[in-house]
Amino acid sequence: MIKIVVDVFSGDNPRALIKGTAAAVNQYPDVHIVMPGDPEFLGSELALYDYDKTRLEILPASEVIGNDESPTVALRQKRDSSLVKGATLLKNDPEVGGMISAGSTGAILCCGIFVVGRIRGIDRPALAPILPTAGGGSVCLIDCGANSDCRSEYLAQFALLGASMMRSVCGVEDPRVAIVNVGVEGHKGNMLTAQTTKILKDMPVNFVGNMEARDALSGKYDVLVCDGFVGNVLLKSIEGTARYVMNDMVEALKKNAPAGLDLSFVEASEKEVMRNFDYNSYGGAFLLGCKKPIEKVHGAANEFTIPCAVGQTRSMILSGMVDKIVERLGQMERKTTEE
Amino acid sequence: MIKIVVDVFSGDNPRALIKGTAAAVNQYPDVHIVMPGDPEFLGSELALYDYDKTRLEILPASEVIGNDESPTVALRQKRDSSLVKGATLLKNDPEVGGMISAGSTGAILCCGIFVVGRIRGIDRPALAPILPTAGGGSVCLIDCGANSDCRSEYLAQFALLGASMMRSVCGVEDPRVAIVNVGVEGHKGNMLTAQTTKILKDMPVNFVGNMEARDALSGKYDVLVCDGFVGNVLLKSIEGTARYVMNDMVEALKKNAPAGLDLSFVEASEKEVMRNFDYNSYGGAFLLGCKKPIEKVHGAANEFTIPCAVGQTRSMILSGMVDKIVERLGQMERKTTEE
Repeated sequence: MIKIVVDVFSGDNPRALIKGTAAAVNQYPDVHIVMPGDPEFLGSELALYDYDKTRLEILPASEVIGNDESPTVALRQKRDSSLVKGATLLKNDPEVGGMISAGSTGAILCCGIFVVGRIRGIDRPALAPILPTAGGGSVCLIDCGANSDCRSEYLAQFALLGASMMRSVCGVEDPRVAIVNVGVEGHKGNMLTAQTTKILKDMPVNFVGNMEARDALSGKYDVLVCDGFVGNVLLKSIEGTARYVMNDMVEALKKNAPAGLDLSFVEASEKEVMRNFDYNSYGGAFLLGCKKPIEKVHGAANEFTIPCAVGQTRSMILSGMVDKIVERLGQMERKTTEE
Repeated sequence: MIKIVVDVFSGDNPRALIKGTAAAVNQYPDVHIVMPGDPEFLGSELALYDYDKTRLEILPASEVIGNDESPTVALRQKRDSSLVKGATLLKNDPEVGGMISAGSTGAILCCGIFVVGRIRGIDRPALAPILPTAGGGSVCLIDCGANSDCRSEYLAQFALLGASMMRSVCGVEDPRVAIVNVGVEGHKGNMLTAQTTKILKDMPVNFVGNMEARDALSGKYDVLVCDGFVGNVLLKSIEGTARYVMNDMVEALKKNAPAGLDLSFVEASEKEVMRNFDYNSYGGAFLLGCKKPIEKVHGAANEFTIPCAVGQTRSMILSGMVDKIVERLGQMERKTTEE
């Protein structure tokens, strides 16, 4: 049985996420879910759904960490919050393999670092969503918001983490790693990309050079490495642009279509396409670099987000990714020591 | 008569740009164009088109600065290149009001700084395209690629330059200036945005706070301030995402449309929408902060780019924007001195 903590309380809409959790229990017969939170609220909400009750347990937690709270203060003061209780269980119970939370990036990052703990050799855990690309593939963007100011060593570690995830979760054999940059030419970029390039050339990753942001979804790359500020801008601009282009297109189609035409196929096509550009439908972003996998789902996540996230965390646990990263870092360390 | 230099030789496709230049002469009866370059080539290409020959003159220049050359080396060694000749004329001839070039960002930036010269009080000129937003408005993104590593003072100056351009070129009375950031909350961001926020609060611009990248095209802002690395990533991801969303949508529409339906309205709608997300159709980006306006058009610009760019540079010259910036910087300086 694969045990996963699901913290729904830090999000905007716990009710929908509880519904999604019940659905996830039904979808994955080998998954056992632990939900930290108010037992009364959880109990009455869960009573609305039909699911295997032997595989969903409640972990009492009386507090919730809000989106606007200082993560470090909240972590100290709200020891009985759903997020801290969940993270503590994740750390202490060897049977629990991973956690999913709808909490704020800051609070999840703090729990990852101070409760669960970092993998030795990783300076900063990073947030990494997996985005669908042209041609039906996927690409990992790391970091997309955990670390706004980065050193080149962090970015090099992100490359390692991202590549490991793409092998583990998406089955990509030798992930192509690129640095998000302002041009593909080697001399382009800023001080951070220049230093990162030097380090990556000597690392055990398939480093293929620079990538221009217009090619993020091209399918030509498997891992896109950048600091959390740039990654966040890139991710959100993809999301925003998709919405604007689609709105404009639907309006133009309505205006230009022959009079009287049934436009239900336009609506169906819109839904189909936007699913790929919508945070909620593709689960969440992994916080990589901690001793156990933690997945952050969007604050505005809905009921469909959770089954998808549970599936991803389940794959991550089954793949033994964290152990593989530890092993790879150990090899690098031994190599450096021998040299 | 408004005199503008148009350098077509540094682009990928001079022939198309020459055609566009002839068209621009026809479109703007008060514009006089000077084209630096190989007189023979220019002459034989221009002979293909019908335009008012009294308002287009050739400035002989035997060299071309390529996209892959080191800008500083090229500037020193290729004194007879179209770009350097054009920039030198712009600097020395009081009748010439502005320049348009299809050259590389680096080469144009070097010409702006070392040939034309910076406005006193501006540390770094910045590239600023004007993008169409939802609701038919427009937004200036500054810097979008001239300065990859920035100090907060540069960003504050970008705010001033961008606001001035939006007043001059787009007639926005009191441009709303925002910092591109990872969240709208004041405490979010990196060291650069934190420092820039402090400076902007005391500056004579309508600073409205942070903007998340998903709202870049929302129409809620008039000027988006960021370093050239982030701006470049934002701009190119808008461009790239628009293309991917549209491709997916057209494919989905074809698949879902009733059999036998004439889909020419889909193609027409696609063209209509993509015009707004296509670099070429909206002219170019201004290099702001130099003593005379310089507009960079995309290396892959086509014949339709030039008339659009000529119109923008013409507006910029007519508005007397550079003088207004000089005046505003002078006021700020006096205020600081008095305090």
